[in-house]
Amino acid sequence: MAPTPKEDTGNQSSWDTLLPDLPKGALCRYRRKASFNWKEMAVFLDGKDIIQLKNRVFSALESDPLFAHHPGEDLCREKYQELTFLRCKRLFEYDFLTLQETRENPLKLLCLLSCLGMYDWSPSLQYLIHCGVFAGPILSASTRFADFVKQIYNMEVFGCFALTELSHGTNTKGIRTTATFDPSTQEFIIHTPDFEAAKFWVGNMGKHATHAVVYAQLYTPDGQCHGLHSFIVQIRDTKSLLPMPGVMVGDIGMKLGQNGLDNGFAVFHNVRIPKENILNVAGDVTPEGRYSSSVKDVKERFSAALGSLSTGRIFVMAASITNLKLAISIAIRFSAARHQFGPTDDEEIPVLEYQMQQWRLLPYLAAAYALDYFSKSLLENFVEFYAGLLTKQRSQRQGDLGREIHALSAASKPLASWTAQQAVQECREACGGHGYLAMNRLGDIRNDNDPNCTYEGDNNVLLQQTSNYLMSWMNCIRDKAPFESPLGTINVLQDYHHILSWKFTANSVEDCMDSSVPLAAYKWLVCYLLKESDLKLKKEKQSGRSDFEAKNNCQVYYCRSLSIAFIEQTVLQRYHDYTHDPSMPSTLQPVLKKLSALYGLWSLSKHLAVLYQGGYASGEQAGKFIQNAILELCYRLKDDAVALVDVFAPPDFILNSPIAKASGEIYKSMWAEILQGSKTLNRPSWWAELCINKPVIGRLRSKL
Amino acid sequence: MAPTPKEDTGNQSSWDTLLPDLPKGALCRYRRKASFNWKEMAVFLDGKDIIQLKNRVFSALESDPLFAHHPGEDLCREKYQELTFLRCKRLFEYDFLTLQETRENPLKLLCLLSCLGMYDWSPSLQYLIHCGVFAGPILSASTRFADFVKQIYNMEVFGCFALTELSHGTNTKGIRTTATFDPSTQEFIIHTPDFEAAKFWVGNMGKHATHAVVYAQLYTPDGQCHGLHSFIVQIRDTKSLLPMPGVMVGDIGMKLGQNGLDNGFAVFHNVRIPKENILNVAGDVTPEGRYSSSVKDVKERFSAALGSLSTGRIFVMAASITNLKLAISIAIRFSAARHQFGPTDDEEIPVLEYQMQQWRLLPYLAAAYALDYFSKSLLENFVEFYAGLLTKQRSQRQGDLGREIHALSAASKPLASWTAQQAVQECREACGGHGYLAMNRLGDIRNDNDPNCTYEGDNNVLLQQTSNYLMSWMNCIRDKAPFESPLGTINVLQDYHHILSWKFTANSVEDCMDSSVPLAAYKWLVCYLLKESDLKLKKEKQSGRSDFEAKNNCQVYYCRSLSIAFIEQTVLQRYHDYTHDPSMPSTLQPVLKKLSALYGLWSLSKHLAVLYQGGYASGEQAGKFIQNAILELCYRLKDDAVALVDVFAPPDFILNSPIAKASGEIYKSMWAEILQGSKTLNRPSWWAELCINKPVIGRLRSKL
Repeated sequence: MAPTPKEDTGNQSSWDTLLPDLPKGALCRYRRKASFNWKEMAVFLDGKDIIQLKNRVFSALESDPLFAHHPGEDLCREKYQELTFLRCKRLFEYDFLTLQETRENPLKLLCLLSCLGMYDWSPSLQYLIHCGVFAGPILSASTRFADFVKQIYNMEVFGCFALTELSHGTNTKGIRTTATFDPSTQEFIIHTPDFEAAKFWVGNMGKHATHAVVYAQLYTPDGQCHGLHSFIVQIRDTKSLLPMPGVMVGDIGMKLGQNGLDNGFAVFHNVRIPKENILNVAGDVTPEGRYSSSVKDVKERFSAALGSLSTGRIFVMAASITNLKLAISIAIRFSAARHQFGPTDDEEIPVLEYQMQQWRLLPYLAAAYALDYFSKSLLENFVEFYAGLLTKQRSQRQGDLGREIHALSAASKPLASWTAQQAVQECREACGGHGYLAMNRLGDIRNDNDPNCTYEGDNNVLLQQTSNYLMSWMNCIRDKAPFESPLGTINVLQDYHHILSWKFTANSVEDCMDSSVPLAAYKWLVCYLLKESDLKLKKEKQSGRSDFEAKNNCQVYYCRSLSIAFIEQTVLQRYHDYTHDPSMPSTLQPVLKKLSALYGLWSLSKHLAVLYQGGYASGEQAGKFIQNAILELCYRLKDDAVALVDVFAPPDFILNSPIAKASGEIYKSMWAEILQGSKTLNRPSWWAELCINKPVIGRLRSKL
Repeated sequence: MAPTPKEDTGNQSSWDTLLPDLPKGALCRYRRKASFNWKEMAVFLDGKDIIQLKNRVFSALESDPLFAHHPGEDLCREKYQELTFLRCKRLFEYDFLTLQETRENPLKLLCLLSCLGMYDWSPSLQYLIHCGVFAGPILSASTRFADFVKQIYNMEVFGCFALTELSHGTNTKGIRTTATFDPSTQEFIIHTPDFEAAKFWVGNMGKHATHAVVYAQLYTPDGQCHGLHSFIVQIRDTKSLLPMPGVMVGDIGMKLGQNGLDNGFAVFHNVRIPKENILNVAGDVTPEGRYSSSVKDVKERFSAALGSLSTGRIFVMAASITNLKLAISIAIRFSAARHQFGPTDDEEIPVLEYQMQQWRLLPYLAAAYALDYFSKSLLENFVEFYAGLLTKQRSQRQGDLGREIHALSAASKPLASWTAQQAVQECREACGGHGYLAMNRLGDIRNDNDPNCTYEGDNNVLLQQTSNYLMSWMNCIRDKAPFESPLGTINVLQDYHHILSWKFTANSVEDCMDSSVPLAAYKWLVCYLLKESDLKLKKEKQSGRSDFEAKNNCQVYYCRSLSIAFIEQTVLQRYHDYTHDPSMPSTLQPVLKKLSALYGLWSLSKHLAVLYQGGYASGEQAGKFIQNAILELCYRLKDDAVALVDVFAPPDFILNSPIAKASGEIYKSMWAEILQGSKTLNRPSWWAELCINKPVIGRLRSKL
């Protein structure tokens, strides 16, 4: 994938207009040492348009009292839910992006959601669920919903998307809610057979939604089940917000994070909805109650469905990368400002100077850059696919593209969400006790990121989709038939037999300092793991196991590793090509190449055992070269780290972490915030329980 | 270390008296398949005394309304702090363990703290900080504090331990609070030079403590600084709980977890305390203001100090293991009760049947068993050392023992806290969305465990202590001088030269199914990493780096890996010896041996690359044997998993997680809890903001 050359990056004065200078302070020392201009980098990576959008969003939030922070206040969940809803509603009033703008540059939508998420995921998710997850399937269904769609975008109704049930999430085939057609009234009867089939986890359903897209097994009057279909079901009155008759709807309670968002449940007791409320994409019923499927070509339907599932995953990937950026911004700025120990007792040095701290953090910084580029490029691929869907393209390429994008998003979502989760934990620990203080925000970031590993498909289950896709090419490989994929991500397999004979050949640390070295290793790794997974599956089947069992027994160490290696290789390939493009400004290329190399080597180092095991690497030196190259790259990047963070860190108001102030004034900022707490200094109301009502030691011992 | 044979484990009827049957339900299927009797195992591992203590504590908490849970209530931090204090106070009234009982069996103290922690760490920590961390150094100081100690144990005063400052934690030498002796009034003047030197993070200081043990740089009137000393400083009035004049004391605010505990800060403005308040262990001043050190032998003092630091780490290790047990109990019971997918569309199987789920969870179950045994054995070692301290043993052995225990606790605390942290995250993800629901408790466990990685020494910094200790034996090794350590944990190094020539020799998966295989590999690994670390340090020094720099550059991939490998090897060695002892009941030995093998192989598998790199392993088979043995052990343990959890899981009331009910009734329990929420079903108070006050779409767009 060739890099898309952005517009001319301009000059210092144009950068200064777009991006204000950062405040002076403790971080200047590092900023002065940076090898590049962070403003130039920002303009090069994002372009003027995106930066202006960011500026617009960030400054709107900072200027609006509704979005003010309340340091030291202990926001209870109910209050947080209310505030979240009001903020979500305010987003309708800002209407940051018109449909036209989004169409012209879909990256803007991703950018908007990331900007809002950088502030707080709860209102952004509430907004997204209503305008996207709920509205999306209705928009895709028949035009008879045109009026209803207007109501959605005017917020006359408020929506949610109800698929998951209490006892079935990942296995959607196990959904047990029913929709039975009654020809006598021309209605569907929505029913929850028992409470294990209650709709559960549904975002916006807990307190707000008036309508839900409900997935249910469609039954015709002849008693036949026609599988999962979706229906618009009104769950609350739009005038009073009270539940509709027959609907028991409520809030599922506190979660580990995202507590502004109201996740809910619903139990339907023979709730009748008009026949028209079926979202008739996949199928419909006639007035007499006969089932008819509108989509004839099952394969086409499947490919369309697969591709559409990618939307959610691409969003979750972007959200994870946003969290990764927030966390690493906090940890790097803190590490540059925090001094601890030193060569002498009198002189303490920034903790960023320690090799250990560099090694803990800088690979995640590199990952943020590489994954960010990948997620944007995947969105561009998706946009092409989506255009084909809208124009009802039926070409082979369109179908292949759907499958390829599905395979990519099914692995990149796990990669991004896990990378972010591990990064936030490492950042928390790398900031020591201060990382454990809630005001510094690493806890919220970790807790809000956590569900990214689970929703839109459990990470480990999703990875199976990607390995299934890769394994499906084995026949072509065996037959030595020519093959390729629309995006070329599996073209590496064309040289399968040849690549399997490759060896690690670097002769020095310096040899390893370019991402071409880990990239070559990854190509071998993908082919090797594909070979091994294929062999393992055969062996399992030969030993008499059912397909189901055989597949389950091929995941650990085989298919799972294969999917991970494949997506890392793909991310690295794209980032390598991007950073090595001759059109890249010479002022930025060196540091970006280092990031590419570090990301590649560090990711690869987790597979080192397999490289040895499969014979790609041998001897003591191979591993040492890789390890030393990682450390050397960390060292060479440490003086650029603060500037690299400045490129994507949002303004202080949005980042909202005293230890990550752009000025580096970590202690002053913490004090300012601590002293805002209304209960910080006062005596506890229960003081007499300590001073007067003394315990009688052992009084209750006899009762034990 | 030979296993300590417990008392006779008795028979079924004696087990039934100690341990009630578990309720029937979905988990019976697995319980019936278990290869052993969980009650016999519990009695064998803990002994009757400990089980009775557990029963006493658990049932006291369950019967006391003060400890009742309040499902669905959104406990604000202030209320939680109050409840925590009242619960802490109640612990004085229960007085679960007398001093006599603790002295007879120090394991009981660890057991008590774990039991209380299983309920909630906040009150337990508050109690421990007062009775242990605060009282400890006062008890060790001169007898002139006898009256004060009485006040402590009667809770007439309430204490905290103030070492860390806002800008200095890990580097305690950088502490800047001063204690200047004024001979004219025979007082010390405690002073905080600026707010960066404020005492910070101090548990119990935020709201409750009346007194603090404060660490400060001691200055004599001649202006000389004599280093860190500790002082008793009154910070709040005992009658009114208002701050003492000159003391600015408050709460540092919300943390990621442990929010019942009030962590605080204090700024001292020339606060005068009587001369007698110095804790004169290390040194004192004469009335004229001359400094005098009471401990002559620096080496002895150092060893005593080192050993004492281990107390905290042993406690943190035990706390981490407790969290590990809680998390794995929840995830295993959930996995045994939750069905998802299956060989046919109609038949779903428990997720515990999936190899992937087994591989994600069962190694942590094995880790819980192995680490638990290690922590108890280390406590026994510590008790021996402590007895020596009390009797003022000055033998070589006593000093050596102090250093060895220091090296062990400095690595086992990181190992246990990280293992627990990773386990809780894996458990959270393995429980899918339900793991993300706060009521199921994995979030609290993760958040409460998190600081275990940081306090009592940052994990990565602590590991340096262990590698320093190991590197200190290199001279003996080089000189081929005979050496040994009191506990024998470094005796493996006696065969250093020989062991370095060892190779991996297993010829089949079955060959690898005993912990002797990973144990041998670990011995090689420790010697190899020691050799490599030593070489690396030399190289760094030869290239002209200062000692400080050289050491810093040897941590990643060298000293850090060495410490981790060493402690894993030590844990495994002890657990291997324990599980292979011929006196082990034949009913329990098979399953315990499997746990030992699984823990060993799984831990070792993370070092597989080094085994290849250093030439211990070669070829494709070695890695495959290890991986297949891990999977095979997981498979052989899956039917025992529920019973293995039953052995250490506390009663439902204490475990307090609907998805982990002993009955396996996960959905019914969740519903029961959800419907307790007072706000679950009602309309939000801000409903009119949705129904009436509609947003004007784009109203604020023009303002952007």
